[in-house]
Amino acid sequence: MARLYLALLHHPVLDKNGAVVTTAVTNMDVHDIARLARTFELDGFYVATPVETLRRLVQRIIHHWEEGWGATYNATRKDALALVRLAPDLDAVITDVERECGALPRLVATSARDGGDRLGYDALRERLAAPGPPVLLVFGTGWGLTRELLDRMDDVLEPIRGRGDYNHLSVRSAAAIILDRLHRPR
Amino acid sequence: MARLYLALLHHPVLDKNGAVVTTAVTNMDVHDIARLARTFELDGFYVATPVETLRRLVQRIIHHWEEGWGATYNATRKDALALVRLAPDLDAVITDVERECGALPRLVATSARDGGDRLGYDALRERLAAPGPPVLLVFGTGWGLTRELLDRMDDVLEPIRGRGDYNHLSVRSAAAIILDRLHRPR
Repeated sequence: MARLYLALLHHPVLDKNGAVVTTAVTNMDVHDIARLARTFELDGFYVATPVETLRRLVQRIIHHWEEGWGATYNATRKDALALVRLAPDLDAVITDVERECGALPRLVATSARDGGDRLGYDALRERLAAPGPPVLLVFGTGWGLTRELLDRMDDVLEPIRGRGDYNHLSVRSAAAIILDRLHRPR
Repeated sequence: MARLYLALLHHPVLDKNGAVVTTAVTNMDVHDIARLARTFELDGFYVATPVETLRRLVQRIIHHWEEGWGATYNATRKDALALVRLAPDLDAVITDVERECGALPRLVATSARDGGDRLGYDALRERLAAPGPPVLLVFGTGWGLTRELLDRMDDVLEPIRGRGDYNHLSVRSAAAIILDRLHRPR
């Protein structure tokens, strides 16, 4: 079975006007996606931001729940946060996965937008079930990954569609739905 | 097709020691679940808390994004928050749904815990696709709905299971996965 990693990128991502920005790290993204990573037994969840202060902040949050007072208050957070890793950018994430697996990960972006060839959930689930290189699922914060980042990806997953045209889920909700779809055969 | 409503209850719910408490309303729960409700075209999303100050706070948040400065800043929030309704408790939610639909809703609880007869996602999706009374999906905050509330429900949905035993998703993640499962046939 191929290893599966998730990266949440805070730069370079788009804002709602299409400008390239660096978003702030959201505490709830870290907790929610760490719990998802633990539930679906991912091999690692990277929080990537070039802002060193924010990486240190996340490190302090993890420390609080892993070794501080929080570890006895709520052990389920500790279990989830153990999967969180910090990185400055996508390249550092790729290097870390390669170091751990001995192979470069295949990069699979997620996007709320239509267009181009898209990888289906069934196809990716089958790929994950077979032996092969690790897969790195890449999520952008803000209004999504830049064109430059999307061009580096091996594949882009199908967008999540509900019953209408509305496609503005939070990255937390999108990660929940995507990991569930990759886990459950249909 | 049966109408589908969602209620997020902040009382009476359990804390991690099993005590009955009232939880605070979390801003991100309102935004994330409102966006999910909009994506999957639910008929309404009730935020239920007995604390009037917190209902007023949510009302102010909605007003900011619907009519204040936020409405022009980010219209996708306005679209989602239009589905949010406030109520003091489950009884008020039931009364409101009955008033709108002319029939009492069937109450379907969600729970992370195993045990008892559980309603499957396929069965509920089929029920929603047929004509029938409205369905009210009930989510508890904190560590979940009290026994007393669960005993009032017509059904309890299957818990979400990942690859292991860990069952501590945020209510935001659980709502995302459940609404996606109810939407997509498998």
